Amino acid sequence: MPLGQRPGDKSESRYCGVETEFHDDMPHLLTESLSGGFDFIVAPLIDPSYRPSCMTNGGSGSSVLPVAASDLILSPSQWSSHVVGKISSWIDLDSDDEKVRLDSEITLKQEIAWASHLSLQACILPPPRRASCGNYAKCVNQILQSTNNMQLWLRVPLQKSEPMDDDSANANSDFSGGSMFDSWEWWNSFRLLCEHHSQLCVVLDILSSLPSNNSVGRWFGEPVRAAVIYTNSFLTNARGYPCLSKRHQKLITEFFNHSVQIVISGSLLHDISGESIKALPANDDDSHLEVIPPRHALRPYLDYVAYLYQRMDPLPEQERFELGYRDFLQSPLQPLMDNLEAQTYETFEKDIVKYSQYQRAVCKALIDRVPDENASTKITVLMVVGAGRGPLVRASLQSLDVLRIKVIILQAAEETARKLKVYAVEKNPNAVITLHSLVKLEGWEDIVTIISSDMRCWNAPEKADILVSELLGSFGDNELSPECLDGAQRFLKADGISIPSSYTSFIQPVTATKLYNDVKSHKDLAHFETAYVVKLHRVARLAPCQPVFTFTHPEYSKKSNERYKKLCFEIPSDSGSAVVHGFAGYFDATLYKDVHLGIEPSTATPNMFSWFPIFFPLRTPLFVATGSPLEVHFWRCSSTSKVWYEWCVTSPTTSPVHNSNGRSYWVGL
Amino acid sequence: MPLGQRPGDKSESRYCGVETEFHDDMPHLLTESLSGGFDFIVAPLIDPSYRPSCMTNGGSGSSVLPVAASDLILSPSQWSSHVVGKISSWIDLDSDDEKVRLDSEITLKQEIAWASHLSLQACILPPPRRASCGNYAKCVNQILQSTNNMQLWLRVPLQKSEPMDDDSANANSDFSGGSMFDSWEWWNSFRLLCEHHSQLCVVLDILSSLPSNNSVGRWFGEPVRAAVIYTNSFLTNARGYPCLSKRHQKLITEFFNHSVQIVISGSLLHDISGESIKALPANDDDSHLEVIPPRHALRPYLDYVAYLYQRMDPLPEQERFELGYRDFLQSPLQPLMDNLEAQTYETFEKDIVKYSQYQRAVCKALIDRVPDENASTKITVLMVVGAGRGPLVRASLQSLDVLRIKVIILQAAEETARKLKVYAVEKNPNAVITLHSLVKLEGWEDIVTIISSDMRCWNAPEKADILVSELLGSFGDNELSPECLDGAQRFLKADGISIPSSYTSFIQPVTATKLYNDVKSHKDLAHFETAYVVKLHRVARLAPCQPVFTFTHPEYSKKSNERYKKLCFEIPSDSGSAVVHGFAGYFDATLYKDVHLGIEPSTATPNMFSWFPIFFPLRTPLFVATGSPLEVHFWRCSSTSKVWYEWCVTSPTTSPVHNSNGRSYWVGL
Repeated sequence: MPLGQRPGDKSESRYCGVETEFHDDMPHLLTESLSGGFDFIVAPLIDPSYRPSCMTNGGSGSSVLPVAASDLILSPSQWSSHVVGKISSWIDLDSDDEKVRLDSEITLKQEIAWASHLSLQACILPPPRRASCGNYAKCVNQILQSTNNMQLWLRVPLQKSEPMDDDSANANSDFSGGSMFDSWEWWNSFRLLCEHHSQLCVVLDILSSLPSNNSVGRWFGEPVRAAVIYTNSFLTNARGYPCLSKRHQKLITEFFNHSVQIVISGSLLHDISGESIKALPANDDDSHLEVIPPRHALRPYLDYVAYLYQRMDPLPEQERFELGYRDFLQSPLQPLMDNLEAQTYETFEKDIVKYSQYQRAVCKALIDRVPDENASTKITVLMVVGAGRGPLVRASLQSLDVLRIKVIILQAAEETARKLKVYAVEKNPNAVITLHSLVKLEGWEDIVTIISSDMRCWNAPEKADILVSELLGSFGDNELSPECLDGAQRFLKADGISIPSSYTSFIQPVTATKLYNDVKSHKDLAHFETAYVVKLHRVARLAPCQPVFTFTHPEYSKKSNERYKKLCFEIPSDSGSAVVHGFAGYFDATLYKDVHLGIEPSTATPNMFSWFPIFFPLRTPLFVATGSPLEVHFWRCSSTSKVWYEWCVTSPTTSPVHNSNGRSYWVGL
Repeated sequence: MPLGQRPGDKSESRYCGVETEFHDDMPHLLTESLSGGFDFIVAPLIDPSYRPSCMTNGGSGSSVLPVAASDLILSPSQWSSHVVGKISSWIDLDSDDEKVRLDSEITLKQEIAWASHLSLQACILPPPRRASCGNYAKCVNQILQSTNNMQLWLRVPLQKSEPMDDDSANANSDFSGGSMFDSWEWWNSFRLLCEHHSQLCVVLDILSSLPSNNSVGRWFGEPVRAAVIYTNSFLTNARGYPCLSKRHQKLITEFFNHSVQIVISGSLLHDISGESIKALPANDDDSHLEVIPPRHALRPYLDYVAYLYQRMDPLPEQERFELGYRDFLQSPLQPLMDNLEAQTYETFEKDIVKYSQYQRAVCKALIDRVPDENASTKITVLMVVGAGRGPLVRASLQSLDVLRIKVIILQAAEETARKLKVYAVEKNPNAVITLHSLVKLEGWEDIVTIISSDMRCWNAPEKADILVSELLGSFGDNELSPECLDGAQRFLKADGISIPSSYTSFIQPVTATKLYNDVKSHKDLAHFETAYVVKLHRVARLAPCQPVFTFTHPEYSKKSNERYKKLCFEIPSDSGSAVVHGFAGYFDATLYKDVHLGIEPSTATPNMFSWFPIFFPLRTPLFVATGSPLEVHFWRCSSTSKVWYEWCVTSPTTSPVHNSNGRSYWVGL
């Protein structure tokens, strides 16, 4: 049964498995495990003493595989829902002994074929037994080319830069890595050989000591499906119960948040008497379990994992809303070239946080613009350019209310309230219709003038004190705010204010296997040279963000909106080597003075949901060895009809320039 | 006019150019150079003092480019045949000064556009001025995407690991590289950014000191179009004439052999009086030049280059025959699945060297097999499997003649001549027809029995003493000789002899830009996972060959014909870093005892032309830094219907396994 109910969480991490030894009574094994509270078993499918070469040479002519159970012993749904196959751990496909190598190859293929026949969802491949695993990867790659939907999970220890100790004995690996061992490099090499095959995933063996946080962080950009925790990794609390170290607890929680399933392995090492069961920090739902007589030996560990699951906070509403968007690539909007749909306006208008930031900015600008003594006489001309269905008009007008409330609170003279004249300029004729209704509905007819025109060609009847716009994309300038505002600043007074007054884009290198595979699945160049809007989730952020392009408004220097920036990232050396699948992009905008809004992670405006990050992929995953600098170039280019980005890497290795001349991805002017 | 007539040489290296300064009398410049014996000029197209930003700011409103000559001044064919454009050398696209950068970018685009308008065949791009040239490459890449057929030749000094000295002043480069400077890395980074664009080529500036041979060797895998020799790189011989060092001479000769044109640059530094002209080591044809009055100032250098050209040996006949095949990718034959055509038989039957090796092998085998005393009674059964149109039957029978001649020479008894019974087994019914005619024509009816059958299923009426076959491909086993001979050895006596008795394949890593681009031009994965037969020419062999797979015949061990080999190459450290586009493959076969034949370069059988090397491409060019080992894996795999290779690299970086399950390239059984 699931570890617990966590509102909003529909991920597989609710399910917990148990690793078992080879057993020829599968039904018993399964019943015992399921009734003991586990959701699935990780079980060997073939007698581990089987060797193909012995069968043919010394055998009695019978060449029936010594399987744990025939397919008829369990129902198809039992096999596929509750059994993860475990490939014989003795196999060694890179052995120097050719006989061992051939036996291993045959066994691997036979076991996978059998698992596939049983329609298992996944098989776990044992860890490579040597640093070089070229032949193992080649055979797995061959199998992946012709396997149905079954996933293959390569098992590797979560370990870096330390020789293996006894804790890894359960991992069935006799690898004797030197002091520079990093299991992530093993995995990386294996999956590169297998060409990032989408059915090749990872199982991590969690040992009692954990590598650095940065090093562990790399795994969150990888397709980790399960984490095996050994009973000997558990500590013992004061009352004799198993528990985990703080760092292990934090790690398990992160696994839960990244849809990684937990598997318990090993034997009972904590002797708990029956009486103390009720003292367990488990949830109340578990109480009914006591009617089932034989308690599973590993139940105390399962209970502890369930406790960790249940004590997590429920997913915040915004996260729950965005669940469906996680790691889902979307094409960026083209609001200048295309007209947005009502549904799109609807979604973005709900972003209360964003509009309250605008309202604060307009407030501050009004106060600065109009001294208290002129408030009653001076009418401030405010133009909302790109008014859409009116949210910025509303925010601007609400700023008047705010000022009025302030007047009341401060007991100031009523005259200090500011007066506004608003122009709402919008090029989308459909949105203009809604604007008219809104103005009528709200009774703003005296204050608001609606202009149905592209701001770049409107001939304004007067000049504005304040120009308010929200033309920002996930990467700041990528929806062509600079070009639009260059067109609009003709009708801004020389000392007028633009809100926003500036914005800056940011990037950081990321590992994002899922995104890379999704881009790759299109099998063309164009998708590798396109930027995507995406709610980043299964992503490893490898280095802090760095600023890329900045635009300031108004801009009277006749400076071009083309830009070039060279950036050098340093991945923390305790991360180890890493693979870069592309760059996550963000923006931060200064609306007015200290009022900003943005999505750059270190300064992101909380609870704002209008923008997901942007993702610039790399055509070839880039391996960055520990300590190597990562040199990246970004260009913003333009022609008479479009604006586009080009990007490339020149260190540690050189990539092609992506999206030359905007051949694959551009934003229309 | 061309440097001279070299029989067989139709390459562009016959033509020599001269570099000129900016000159607004183009026709005069051109006439002077052509009448002076040069074939083309390398000339600036725009006044080097031009700066776009000065034009618009301080100019008189006129924005006409200050070109050297209007397009009408020369005829279109003069422009395109005799002028290579030289882009202004002041441009610095990676300057930190934005104004310089933008001026450079505009100028570059304007000059290329102008050259393109003139239909020039090529423009020379000045050397990058800094170690990092990302923006320069990005702009050139943009230009390449939209340029017609014009080539862009990036100019770089031929220099490695030494700071630039005064000799490079003419290269117009202010780059101050440290002691680790390697101009090849510059080029490599530039062309990687430009994605190996086929119109991006190199011009090498030859300085007075040359890097190591290994380092220079890398350039022969690159698209080097011209080499510039400066007058100050010439030495002075005893009589005051310019000459070059031995190493420079050798280099120039190699350039000639690789279609690289020479360009002379600089001013006259050797004062030669008119009288001594006749003493020049030039060919007689030059005598007519004396009627043309104004002798070109750089003529002595041209004459010396012409002398180097003319003193080269003519191309050997075989090379001349193979000229058209140089670097031309061909699909390997599938002689098992397809029947060869008459034309193919015709070509291969002309390879006298090959058949004489077979004849020697059969001779030795016969002598070993039949002691002199048994010669008159013992009839040796020799089977030619895969007899084709009969060349191996002929070679086998000729071995009898050889033995007979030996008998005569040694005055031995006539009886010591051996007796043969020959079976000619051939599966191609068309070739069998020719075989019958041959046997009748030669009167071999009593000796030769023709069998129209696949050797794998023929039921032989008796067993053979000697099995002769020639089923070898460029990579040895790639035409499935192992599988065929496994089938044929059923009818070989237990102590019988197979000719060949074994064969081994070899590979070596190569730089081969031309081949990579040809493979890439297909724009699909399959062509990157296919092996090609190709006469390697513009290729840099980066490390000595290493053996891959060996097959021995007869083979009674029931060993599979699948193979796996891991190889580790070390590129000599004085080569510097290198890029690997793939692996050149060869074979060597032991026919019998010390009689071998093969194409592995260090032991290749001279004057044999039946096999070109094979080329296994890599999907992504692999950068190998100085001193990094190159770890390569090769597999020979088989199923019931086909045999194929898979290959990958695991160091310095990991590639995908190529051709998994033979998805792109295989040989049918």
